[in-house]
Formats: sequence, structure tokens, C-alpha cells
Amino acid sequence: MSRLDSFIRRLQAQRACLNRAAELVRRVDGAVLELGLGNGRTYDHLRELFPDRNIYVCERQVAAHPDCVPPADRLLLGDLRETLPQARSWLEGRVALAHLDVGTGDAAGNKALAAELLPLVMPLLCAGAVLASDPVMDCPELAELPLPDGVAEGRYHLYRRV
Amino acid sequence: MSRLDSFIRRLQAQRACLNRAAELVRRVDGAVLELGLGNGRTYDHLRELFPDRNIYVCERQVAAHPDCVPPADRLLLGDLRETLPQARSWLEGRVALAHLDVGTGDAAGNKALAAELLPLVMPLLCAGAVLASDPVMDCPELAELPLPDGVAEGRYHLYRRV
Repeated sequence: MSRLDSFIRRLQAQRACLNRAAELVRRVDGAVLELGLGNGRTYDHLRELFPDRNIYVCERQVAAHPDCVPPADRLLLGDLRETLPQARSWLEGRVALAHLDVGTGDAAGNKALAAELLPLVMPLLCAGAVLASDPVMDCPELAELPLPDGVAEGRYHLYRRV
Repeated sequence: MSRLDSFIRRLQAQRACLNRAAELVRRVDGAVLELGLGNGRTYDHLRELFPDRNIYVCERQVAAHPDCVPPADRLLLGDLRETLPQARSWLEGRVALAHLDVGTGDAAGNKALAAELLPLVMPLLCAGAVLASDPVMDCPELAELPLPDGVAEGRYHLYRRV
């Protein structure tokens, strides 16, 4: 499998998981939290999936396509390790779906980042919230959900906050 | 269709066209020319498709994954408008497949670049060579070929040098 094949599979897995997550939170009231804007493609997909929800986006420095930049009042600009604790005052227990796409090939680095972010994200999730993530999220309050058909085990992860 | 959907379709179209191009040049002797290395994903795919051919890659400045950097003797480093004319002395009529992925959303800019590169690429192509390109290539010596199933008209282009 070439890197082109592998990249296409990764994007398809991501899309399938986001689409599934949208179904899973259909009856869970709350905002959407995108951890990292990047080029804005995933944010654009979330906008399509959730036209009626507030989508908050964390990003260190915006470098997305101009059409994919969130409104200023929904953009949490800065390091996640600072913006997520700050957001707790107004977003605690109000997020129905959080999405983390680290997206690097550095497995050890991804795992370390996931472990660091998890305690910052958990307080924001409401009961029944879904967390979609490319790295594993290891937490007793998160129950792993089955992946959509065609998504290889471990390529992406879906969790429900119990 | 979100930008994520559109990006996935674009990559699938690219892969389908490269796979088709590989079939089309099976009986055409010659090198492969990749116009732009980028992150190296397409180069990696070409390496899989053409394990026994020389693949020359033009790139202004290498920024690919370390596993996807061509050997120094097959890397034409610099501006295409300089490296392609230089390559003519040793590569004229010796390329069986050339691939150009401009990959920007700027249609007018892509068209202008394609028009500029076309006269530099044409002399390198052997008779029967295939040119795969995301922008249109307008040249009487190029016959447009049908696209693989599932690739929308205009998303990619396949030409045979007549």
C-alpha cells in the first residue's frame, strides 16, 4: 500500500467516523468541539453535519482556507493546554461531540499528546457525548464504540462518555 | 459536498488516473516524470506502480517525508522553467509517463502554469507517452483519453502523445 493509498484510507476512516458520530449524538444536546483546525477540511465537514450547532475550534495559529475559518467568537486561539482549561468556565459539560485529529505518523508523540489533552477535554463533555479521535484515549469514563464498516481497527476511535 | 468530501474524491481520482496511466504505458518504454514532489505521496504511489523504471522528480525545494525523497541522481532540483529545459539534453523523447499535479484551487493560475509547462514537457515525451494532469493541457499533439470509471469529467485529465 502506497502512502497515497494509506492517506486516502485515513481520510475515508475519518469521514466515516465523523458521520457515525453525528448519528450517535443526534439526541445529545450540546456543542461541537474541534481540536485543531489545520486546513479546515474537517471543520467544513462538521459544519455540514451540524448546521444548527455551535462548533468551537481550537487552533494555535489559523492557516486554513479562508472559507473554513470559524467566526471569531467560536475560535479558541492559542495552545490547547491553555485554551481548554480557560474554556471550562463557560463550556463545562456542554460539548456533545469532540474531535481530535492529531494526524501525524509519530505514534509515541500522538499517545503522549492524547494523554495530556484527555483530562482537559473530559470536563467539557456532557453525559452521552461522543469523542472521535485518531489516537487511543484511555479513560474509565470513556466506553469505546464499534467503528463504521470499512474502517480498520485502530485507524480511528469512537468513544461515548458514560 | 464538504471540502473533506471533495479532497477525498480528488485523491481517489488522482490514484485512479495514475493506475490507469500505468496500464496505458505498459508497452511504452521510457522513464516516469513527476512534476512536483510535494509531500511525496504520489511519488510513493508511482514507485509502487513502476518498480522497474527510472522515476525523475522535479521539485523546487524538497519537503517530503524522508521515506519519499528520490535518489539525488533522479531529483531535478529547482524551478521547473529551468530544470525542464536543462533535462532536454538527456531526457528528450525518453519519458513514457509524465504527471503534473498542480493541486491548487486557483483555476486561472493552474491554467496559466499548465500553458507555461506544456512546451517544456512535450519534447521529453516519447511517441505513445501518457500525460496525467489535473489542469487541462491544450495541445494538438495530445489526444485526450477517457477517464477511469468514477472519475468526474474535468477532475483529472489523461492524454496520449500522438
